[in-house]
Amino acid sequence: MPPRVLALLNRPSLEAEPHAPGAAPFTLVDPREPHLSVLDLGVTRGDGVFESLSVSGGVAQALDAHLDRFAVSAARLNLPAPDAEAWRAAILAVVAELAPGGQHVVKLVLTRGVEGEGRPTGWVIATPAPDHGAARKGLRVVTLDRGYRHDVAETSPWLLVGAKTLSYAANAAILREAQRRGADDAILVSSDGYVLEGTTSSVVLRHGSVLATPRSGMLPGTTQARVFEWAQGTGFETRSGLVTVAELATADAAWLVSSVRLAAPVRELDGRALAVDSDLTAQLNAFLLA
Amino acid sequence: MPPRVLALLNRPSLEAEPHAPGAAPFTLVDPREPHLSVLDLGVTRGDGVFESLSVSGGVAQALDAHLDRFAVSAARLNLPAPDAEAWRAAILAVVAELAPGGQHVVKLVLTRGVEGEGRPTGWVIATPAPDHGAARKGLRVVTLDRGYRHDVAETSPWLLVGAKTLSYAANAAILREAQRRGADDAILVSSDGYVLEGTTSSVVLRHGSVLATPRSGMLPGTTQARVFEWAQGTGFETRSGLVTVAELATADAAWLVSSVRLAAPVRELDGRALAVDSDLTAQLNAFLLA
Repeated sequence: MPPRVLALLNRPSLEAEPHAPGAAPFTLVDPREPHLSVLDLGVTRGDGVFESLSVSGGVAQALDAHLDRFAVSAARLNLPAPDAEAWRAAILAVVAELAPGGQHVVKLVLTRGVEGEGRPTGWVIATPAPDHGAARKGLRVVTLDRGYRHDVAETSPWLLVGAKTLSYAANAAILREAQRRGADDAILVSSDGYVLEGTTSSVVLRHGSVLATPRSGMLPGTTQARVFEWAQGTGFETRSGLVTVAELATADAAWLVSSVRLAAPVRELDGRALAVDSDLTAQLNAFLLA
Repeated sequence: MPPRVLALLNRPSLEAEPHAPGAAPFTLVDPREPHLSVLDLGVTRGDGVFESLSVSGGVAQALDAHLDRFAVSAARLNLPAPDAEAWRAAILAVVAELAPGGQHVVKLVLTRGVEGEGRPTGWVIATPAPDHGAARKGLRVVTLDRGYRHDVAETSPWLLVGAKTLSYAANAAILREAQRRGADDAILVSSDGYVLEGTTSSVVLRHGSVLATPRSGMLPGTTQARVFEWAQGTGFETRSGLVTVAELATADAAWLVSSVRLAAPVRELDGRALAVDSDLTAQLNAFLLA
């Protein structure tokens, strides 16, 4: 079984022309070969959107939720709407090529395409999932300023806050800054003191029997949504809304949750120990893996 | 003569291994073919930097200034330092392939490379310059919120404000919002009321005999620097510093200046007419083209 599988979409959106009229909806190609033009706006301007899905036991997790959010991100960037059925078919074909027992990450990417051509570029790539065992035992996290007010997504939608765009250079730099400070990851905070999100994850915190997640213009996390779905059958109350940095610092427990790493508890926040709720972490990850 | 010329660098930085040991420093390749991996961090995260140079009469304008700024952008992203001599050689080889009389744009791109390989990707591409004749007669411009305080580059350097990164999705969205409002371009303003820059240009304004440009953590514009160099031999005083939105609105004249479009006067700001200083515009562009 190949470690990486790549499918190129022939017609990522029904609103634009196909790349090869009459050809198959997607083509499996060698991921070691180059497939992108240096004039693709995905690379020259980071002008595109993505989603990352976890594939476990041969099943792409939360596929519909990811396809829905992919479409929302595309709409925020005024990209042609992705053709959900073409993407679903490409994802299933890629997953069918993978070793059935393994853990993989499938990434969907839609770019505005080569400048002047008016056709988006789209691909689906599966890669082996990294080992997140250590992260699930506990992360050292620092808070870092994201520079924006918490409400900037509403006041200034052209900043694309919350859309999952290819313009992630700042997220990469934020992660480097966190590592420079001896941490594993960062939680981004607004210029007016609210918790936003992790660099590639949502934040969930517990105060007593309440699970809370910040809502500040970011797209809802698919994994955070599943955590709240889990909470329905338990004694936990859930809350989505503004979360201050003080509320995070005084939480009984906190997690960074994402499709690939699942629920990773925060064991240290800005150099101060935070209690790890091992029991709840185990329950959450058992549910998310199921 | 080909309309586009592309050179791929074998070793974009001496701090990293070459792509093909022992091969030539760069290779001229067909720009219509794909040359990038879908796993290049330049596209998956917009994790890279660029510069755009104007080529006029077979000469790359302000080459040293652009190479210097390219290195500064790379350092802000902790990318391996570009090997200036390799880039210069590739640029000169690309320019030598162009029709000598034409106007072209040469773009340099350095990305963090394919994830896990530890080698940056670099290329130089020349394309025909668009016709900016209309822009040089006058632009309708709107001011749009950039979401950041004016001093965020100093307080939160991990946001990469000012570095010329490939993460330009917001700039592209800002330009679409400007066009939606019936304008040609936007001037970005800070959340605390200061003028920052255009979407792909610097701002220069005139009050009487003073030419001013905002300085708020952005990298100095190479064309703006040449405008101030021109001013030295004239009766104009120059000033770099904070510029408020009110100072912009009450300017006697204003320009968006950039390597490719040169000095484009602002003829309308947020729906109000602004005087166009045609005489000064002509003098500036004659100097910049020389």
